[in-house]
Amino acid sequence: MAKGSTSIVIFGATGDLTQRKLLPALFNLRCKGHLSANTNILGFSRTPYSDEEFRQVMRKGTQEFGDLAVHEDEWDAFAQDLYYISGDLGKPEDFIRLGQRLDELEGDAYPHDRLFYLSVAPRLYETAVKNLGASGLAQEDGGWRRVVIEKPFGRDFASAQALNGVVHQVFNEGQVYRIDHYLGKETVQNLLVFRFANAIFEPVWNRNYVDNVQITVAEEVDVGDRAGYYDQSGVLRDMIQNHLLQLLTMVAMEPPSAVDADALRNRKVDVLKAIRRWTPDEVNQHAVSGQYRGYLDEKGVRPGSTTPTYAALRLYIDNWRWHGVPFYLRSGKAMAEKISEVVIQFQSPPHVMFSLGPGQKLTSNVLSICLQPDEGTHLMFEAKVPGQGMETRSVDMEFHYESSFESQVIPEAYERLLQDALEGDATLFIRGDHIEEAWRIIDPVLDTWGNSAAPPVHIYEPGAWGPKAADEFLSQDGRRWLQVCGVHGEGHA
Amino acid sequence: MAKGSTSIVIFGATGDLTQRKLLPALFNLRCKGHLSANTNILGFSRTPYSDEEFRQVMRKGTQEFGDLAVHEDEWDAFAQDLYYISGDLGKPEDFIRLGQRLDELEGDAYPHDRLFYLSVAPRLYETAVKNLGASGLAQEDGGWRRVVIEKPFGRDFASAQALNGVVHQVFNEGQVYRIDHYLGKETVQNLLVFRFANAIFEPVWNRNYVDNVQITVAEEVDVGDRAGYYDQSGVLRDMIQNHLLQLLTMVAMEPPSAVDADALRNRKVDVLKAIRRWTPDEVNQHAVSGQYRGYLDEKGVRPGSTTPTYAALRLYIDNWRWHGVPFYLRSGKAMAEKISEVVIQFQSPPHVMFSLGPGQKLTSNVLSICLQPDEGTHLMFEAKVPGQGMETRSVDMEFHYESSFESQVIPEAYERLLQDALEGDATLFIRGDHIEEAWRIIDPVLDTWGNSAAPPVHIYEPGAWGPKAADEFLSQDGRRWLQVCGVHGEGHA
Repeated sequence: MAKGSTSIVIFGATGDLTQRKLLPALFNLRCKGHLSANTNILGFSRTPYSDEEFRQVMRKGTQEFGDLAVHEDEWDAFAQDLYYISGDLGKPEDFIRLGQRLDELEGDAYPHDRLFYLSVAPRLYETAVKNLGASGLAQEDGGWRRVVIEKPFGRDFASAQALNGVVHQVFNEGQVYRIDHYLGKETVQNLLVFRFANAIFEPVWNRNYVDNVQITVAEEVDVGDRAGYYDQSGVLRDMIQNHLLQLLTMVAMEPPSAVDADALRNRKVDVLKAIRRWTPDEVNQHAVSGQYRGYLDEKGVRPGSTTPTYAALRLYIDNWRWHGVPFYLRSGKAMAEKISEVVIQFQSPPHVMFSLGPGQKLTSNVLSICLQPDEGTHLMFEAKVPGQGMETRSVDMEFHYESSFESQVIPEAYERLLQDALEGDATLFIRGDHIEEAWRIIDPVLDTWGNSAAPPVHIYEPGAWGPKAADEFLSQDGRRWLQVCGVHGEGHA
Repeated sequence: MAKGSTSIVIFGATGDLTQRKLLPALFNLRCKGHLSANTNILGFSRTPYSDEEFRQVMRKGTQEFGDLAVHEDEWDAFAQDLYYISGDLGKPEDFIRLGQRLDELEGDAYPHDRLFYLSVAPRLYETAVKNLGASGLAQEDGGWRRVVIEKPFGRDFASAQALNGVVHQVFNEGQVYRIDHYLGKETVQNLLVFRFANAIFEPVWNRNYVDNVQITVAEEVDVGDRAGYYDQSGVLRDMIQNHLLQLLTMVAMEPPSAVDADALRNRKVDVLKAIRRWTPDEVNQHAVSGQYRGYLDEKGVRPGSTTPTYAALRLYIDNWRWHGVPFYLRSGKAMAEKISEVVIQFQSPPHVMFSLGPGQKLTSNVLSICLQPDEGTHLMFEAKVPGQGMETRSVDMEFHYESSFESQVIPEAYERLLQDALEGDATLFIRGDHIEEAWRIIDPVLDTWGNSAAPPVHIYEPGAWGPKAADEFLSQDGRRWLQVCGVHGEGHA
């Protein structure tokens, strides 16, 4: 009996993502010896490429966007396993042809495992999945069948639920790998290690010690040539529903018994289920929208569009651990700095035993987990100012991922995730119920802001930290947005 | 009525301490405007100096040992208030003369405050105090009278108690300032700020989270020309009874309601009282002595001397907070590095949810408070190693006092303490009951080691980290000595 084989079918093989992320990731995996020997990669798209033409295009992309140098011989070895088939996702007969091509490539290898990667426009997910089902390609026959589905997964709860329905007619949940590439990032996974491989943080990781949590994912770029897509989507769908809620669940979840797909994802869904849902009235009180000045002039944006390019939310997690602790989420485009940061602000010491100067008060401790740009952690704590008396000042205890692990290249998120999917580890992929719960949290905000009676979106200057209303939003709670990492962060004072 | 005056009388004015520490500190205080205008400094010793000769000698010392540049005009202004009287501590009539000289200097100033600084050999403390009493100089007459007493304060519990008895016949406890210059160090005071101006450390600062505490005060130098004195004293009296137990009380005490002399010192004495006292049998089990090879050849050391130049102790604090947590203390001369460090090793996480590699285990968190050489803090915690899987490794989050407060010169301990004594703040001085309790802890070890049936002192090589027995001492507990700061520390891997 021949050895088994693995086929990776990429739908949307001529798209940007394939060239920029998927092929460079697969090439890296091969160079590092992480792809099993008998692995074929088969691109599927409408463009009429030959195998050779496809290889040329992919080589160019990998050279341009990959993080490993592309050596001639390594590429040649890799490219031998690269194939292409031209087809239309909407045509069942093209899936039959796809099946025949796979059979040819796999030969008498057994078992033959197949990974279907949907790197196509979201509106095509259903068609693709249905045709995978109808053609029998999803049928397991000793080898496994898995499908990777890119984000966005739905536009709201109803559409996500419908899509899950379609997917589950063809694949069981264990075969479905919904990607949020944020989960493939080293620093996001490090959140787990930080919380649960250390004994000293967990005791203070609750309402008794934490005053509030702030999660910021800010982009410096504006919508650019994605304006047409973006205008249909907005920051809630583009960032908050997926990335920011992911981070929130990692920060807030109870310790799982193991880091495996079931245990970890159960604890994450627990968090989403415990998040208080806002009524439309409450949305106006607990969410701030913003749009950068100039957005309306971007090509592809509808005249008078009220699509938010910035949002800030105040969420509460109604459980024992987090009762009463606000989680502030914010994300936006055209902001002052590209930054992803989780900030835990602790409560002030219960009793101040030092005689402080007039107007002086102790600064409460702040722990910052910086995802980018300078991956690492900062702990702001009070230290004594040299000299007579007991004057204190905030100082920064810091750790930078890069300087500690300089010899190791931090792998790209897609590299990690593709390998996990090939190995059948769904821990870092989004489960269907997670997606739906996340939409349930965002839907009231989408609905309220989409309503004609909605208050106008706040305009902010490009390069600002969002609209002024977002600052007032926190100052009315007696708090302010904290930024510790990045060039303007307090960790770099 | 004239303004008040302050007189500082230094007994032992021609000694090393006066030249190296006291005068430079007083000069600094004057330059920084921290000495009140009408302050006279009067040196007292047997050497027959004139005021002018004394000023010359002090100027030389201040230039050589002080940390501020000595400007001509500043020194001249300062030196005007510098006087000298030659006298013998044992002669009551010399105290009468001292009183007359003080009256002259103070003129019709009122009130006149007087600080008596005993910078003399410990055997002279009693005589000096008695004569201060007999001469009426200790008598308060509207101005205050205070006495500063250098260490060592007694050689054991009995002698310390006797000395306290003599002191208290002349001064009430509120007038007595027993110095342990360790308490004047910025980084030691920062221990208070670190623990009590931050809300996140105190919750884990107890038996539920701390595995053990290690306090190291290591010296690189050998006994040198202090051998004669040292051989009568040894490391227990020279370092452990004072400095290391001071550090221990700062680390272990309950939060005081205020940082004042009463509240703070009550909490420190509470700790000493709760330390389990060892029987002679237990001493051999809970203490290790060492003597560096070559000590017996030092000039002034008695032939066959068993005086320890190294000691390691295991202490338990029998109270609610610290039940079962060992406090390991070690100090020695001729060791690998000059280092003073408090290390808190936390317990391991209660549950390891990551699938670790074979033989791999999580390193428990370590907090290091480095007093010297690189004053600061290190927090060793686990972070994810970049790459597939969830491998973890210890990394170092660090803060360095110097880089955060670069514009501020860290003042010398004596500067701080002299100012405190002049201002009547005894918070950073040792109270009589503290001294006695500290001796009660050390006495059993002194007695056992001084006994002819004592096991021989362990010899260690100069430049080592003490004798091998000290390593076995911890390894039998399943632990090892931790060093995070300093050039060989794990924080500098």
